[in-house]
Amino acid sequence: MILTVTLNAALDLTYRVPHLVPHASHRVREVTERPGGKGLNVARVLAALGFESTVTGFAGGETGRVLRTLLAADATPPAGSGTAPVTDALVPVAGQTRRTVGVVDESTGDTTQFNEPGPHVTPEEWETFLVAYRELLGGGAVAVALCGSLPPGVPVGAYATLVREARTARVPVLLDTSGEPLRRGLAARPDIIKPNAEELAGITGTAEPLRAARAAQRRGAHAVAASLGADGMLLVTQDGTWSAAVPERLAGNPTGAGDSAVAGLLSGLAEGLPWPDRLARAVALSAATVRSPVAGEFDEPTYATMLPSVRVRQSETP
Amino acid sequence: MILTVTLNAALDLTYRVPHLVPHASHRVREVTERPGGKGLNVARVLAALGFESTVTGFAGGETGRVLRTLLAADATPPAGSGTAPVTDALVPVAGQTRRTVGVVDESTGDTTQFNEPGPHVTPEEWETFLVAYRELLGGGAVAVALCGSLPPGVPVGAYATLVREARTARVPVLLDTSGEPLRRGLAARPDIIKPNAEELAGITGTAEPLRAARAAQRRGAHAVAASLGADGMLLVTQDGTWSAAVPERLAGNPTGAGDSAVAGLLSGLAEGLPWPDRLARAVALSAATVRSPVAGEFDEPTYATMLPSVRVRQSETP
Repeated sequence: MILTVTLNAALDLTYRVPHLVPHASHRVREVTERPGGKGLNVARVLAALGFESTVTGFAGGETGRVLRTLLAADATPPAGSGTAPVTDALVPVAGQTRRTVGVVDESTGDTTQFNEPGPHVTPEEWETFLVAYRELLGGGAVAVALCGSLPPGVPVGAYATLVREARTARVPVLLDTSGEPLRRGLAARPDIIKPNAEELAGITGTAEPLRAARAAQRRGAHAVAASLGADGMLLVTQDGTWSAAVPERLAGNPTGAGDSAVAGLLSGLAEGLPWPDRLARAVALSAATVRSPVAGEFDEPTYATMLPSVRVRQSETP
Repeated sequence: MILTVTLNAALDLTYRVPHLVPHASHRVREVTERPGGKGLNVARVLAALGFESTVTGFAGGETGRVLRTLLAADATPPAGSGTAPVTDALVPVAGQTRRTVGVVDESTGDTTQFNEPGPHVTPEEWETFLVAYRELLGGGAVAVALCGSLPPGVPVGAYATLVREARTARVPVLLDTSGEPLRRGLAARPDIIKPNAEELAGITGTAEPLRAARAAQRRGAHAVAASLGADGMLLVTQDGTWSAAVPERLAGNPTGAGDSAVAGLLSGLAEGLPWPDRLARAVALSAATVRSPVAGEFDEPTYATMLPSVRVRQSETP
């Protein structure tokens, strides 16, 4: 089982409007609700690839209840679908799970995003979570991904604590967050971090991806997998440095492409694939997510077509 | 008791963001949730003025549950507050009550509004509502306000039916809606309609308020109370025509000003006040709503100051 942690899980709402006009009133044409937060997205991609996963983090209030009801459908995928189950191990909190609202302008396809801050987590709730997390790490997790922002009340060094716990339990740990939580988490020496170019620049002060990735490595990450948008991904490890991209630029919606990349890296790690194959999988899944008509999901035929066409280049010796 | 009908009640969310940037991602600084939909807003203003009210319409799903929980607090106002109770007589539906999201740009104070379409109401649910509505009309209602848009599934002639039922029960009826539901509702001869300038132009094809109000009267409304934004209100009745405004232009948030005007007209009707006094109350309440720091609520000291300063002019003989 692969464990994903989403401390600030969300109920993702998508609103489709004909044109977004600031300071006007809009009738929303279509509303969709789905479980959200990076770790939950990662788990859904893992499930589609056939990897069992367990999701933890916090859920509470009416929105938390809706989130868990939607998640329950993923616990028992249709027989013969090739989809693996996602197990809900979210920890209840008194506060209310946040909503995110993505407003899709149908005239341009662009999305304007509004993210609520999330519930206030008490010190007691954080301690309860830590106990549950240790049990999950000891309960057969082959890898763990720590994903996304921190809700109010959770200590800013939370990811450093969770990375250390994973390393103590000898479970490989991937960290996908930004800002101060990433900076602090790095010091605990995660196996992989997966920043985008902006997040990487934010913690290293260097806009040039290779220099920034090396700087992040010096600060504690064993490997840095940086997602560079249309330029693909850059992977800096102790065994070598690789870059990879799909052969042509893709039009589409990048929402969730980073989460699909995390699922690609984790599934490759779980199977013991060499680094270049993990990277190819991450890049192909990202591309198949950009091309999907549904935001945050990946298009399986596109993934099957893309995977053999990804160009992985070893850019220099370590 | 004054009855207000909100067929498309809502859970109103307000998001505060530092700057609204289309196609960007925003961290919402502050989230507020409150019961919404025009008839619920009218009832809250009536309650603050000391008039008992009952709200009906539809509620369903998790958002409906949250809405009713919030409404329950209005059922038992603090003793000695001068606030009257609001009784929840919403009819359950299988679909989910809509959300509205108002995004306040803190740099300008402007609001960008997103309104979900609302639950699909089945013919059986509509019939159940009609039975409940008849009982409420016969159960001591001194006036009824029919407010807002129709959810999917409700017949476009719904307000015509509800106006006729009220007239049969000899309960004065105010209609506050727009477009085709207003056009159809007019034919059933409501006692008062309260369109804004745009809604009035939409059904009459005339942008000049007095001509448009007279046209709406010819189509069936006994009285037309048109809200004209900063220009105050115009009232065309069979007893005379009046216009009223506050002495100075007010800066603020116009959200809910129309609903406060409806509460002013209804409360004046319930007390048997002459038309000019009803109009003055509507205008003062609107102004006190524009000036309120909380969107959709009215500022009581402003109302007390404004009421004697409203200038009502009889513009011509009927």
